[in-house]
Amino acid sequence: MTRTAIWQTIKRSLTTDIAEGRFSTGDRLPTEAQLAGRFGVNRHTVRRALATMAEEGLVHPRRGSGVFVAATPTDYAIGRRVRFHQNIAASGRTPAKRVLSITTQAAGASEAEALRLDPGAAVHVYDGLSLADGQPVAVFQSIFPAERLPGLPEALERIASVTEALAACGVPDYTRVSTRITAKEANATQALHLQIAEGAPILRTVSVNADPDGVPVEFGRTWFAGDRVTLTVGDE
Amino acid sequence: MTRTAIWQTIKRSLTTDIAEGRFSTGDRLPTEAQLAGRFGVNRHTVRRALATMAEEGLVHPRRGSGVFVAATPTDYAIGRRVRFHQNIAASGRTPAKRVLSITTQAAGASEAEALRLDPGAAVHVYDGLSLADGQPVAVFQSIFPAERLPGLPEALERIASVTEALAACGVPDYTRVSTRITAKEANATQALHLQIAEGAPILRTVSVNADPDGVPVEFGRTWFAGDRVTLTVGDE
Repeated sequence: MTRTAIWQTIKRSLTTDIAEGRFSTGDRLPTEAQLAGRFGVNRHTVRRALATMAEEGLVHPRRGSGVFVAATPTDYAIGRRVRFHQNIAASGRTPAKRVLSITTQAAGASEAEALRLDPGAAVHVYDGLSLADGQPVAVFQSIFPAERLPGLPEALERIASVTEALAACGVPDYTRVSTRITAKEANATQALHLQIAEGAPILRTVSVNADPDGVPVEFGRTWFAGDRVTLTVGDE
Repeated sequence: MTRTAIWQTIKRSLTTDIAEGRFSTGDRLPTEAQLAGRFGVNRHTVRRALATMAEEGLVHPRRGSGVFVAATPTDYAIGRRVRFHQNIAASGRTPAKRVLSITTQAAGASEAEALRLDPGAAVHVYDGLSLADGQPVAVFQSIFPAERLPGLPEALERIASVTEALAACGVPDYTRVSTRITAKEANATQALHLQIAEGAPILRTVSVNADPDGVPVEFGRTWFAGDRVTLTVGDE
């Protein structure tokens, strides 16, 4: 048996372990030394198997921490109509939102500008957690014009869904005006909510939604766990 | 003078240092202890100044490494017509591309599928580096159908621009069919090319461009330095 066959055997064995649930998403695999012992090979051979699995997206190494079982990312469409519930459901997962806090306060400069409000105008601030199949996929903060939507906090506390809460407050439809996307490192709070490591990569989106007349009704920031979501733009 | 005034003074002083170029993009600021000594305050006060600067995007802390001067990210529009040269020029920067390698080989399974080729069909593989004002902003790998575009490698070696090379090979226009975006950690090779730390956040896009008849002509993967580019979708 050649060395090639040995690492392929190790890869196949570990892949089966993952497929059959002996290791779940987010689990750390045994160390290279442990795997070398289990398979009776040297660490170089184990490393080759793990590197190939990482290339295929089955596992992801984290420097200094080990090798972890990767999640299959959920596709999340960024288009004219971005709806969390529909996006998650379309990928075959069960969506849920959890309210972290809802407050009313004075708008910051960038928030007022995005919502075309006077500086210091009152806004509702909705901090929440988005889940797919019970797993956190994103933390978000949405800002709404308070004068236009006085009943929104109560509606959000009751139904969590932004789409339904806005409808209950007289905004039956809205579309996405713009989305800005960048990659960041998770800070301690984001890591805690998303159940990922501090410093792990996150996708941050900054977006504006407007009513059919083009008047902004929501300024949103969302921090997606980088290995749990793929943002998609275009036909597919 | 209250403590509030002291941290604001420190923030103003450090912001001036950055604005006047005493610290450049990517530079590590002095440690909290050094700054506390320089300003004659305790570390708590320094920390408050740095935290506010981080919130405003002027600096970014990296765990265990220190606090670094942040770059002003370049906006990069993801729409129907994604052109690197135009995108970078539109943000007021000078675009450039550097060829890392151009080879012709058999397509992998996902590449063949994306380009609607038979498995194992020949493809050109263009690895390169994209720069803005001389600073690397992305590494990329573009895959092209070799049978349709026999002269492409020579054209790319000569002019680097994908748009112009495709035009020289009989594809005068192309549009973006789809873009998939996720956040990853930079591996060693990406970190080296992008001059960022290994493990730093990167934006990875996977995209397909098609000719006016809808036939795919390019399957591309791009890894953007997370703090140097903001991908934008929509009107703005």
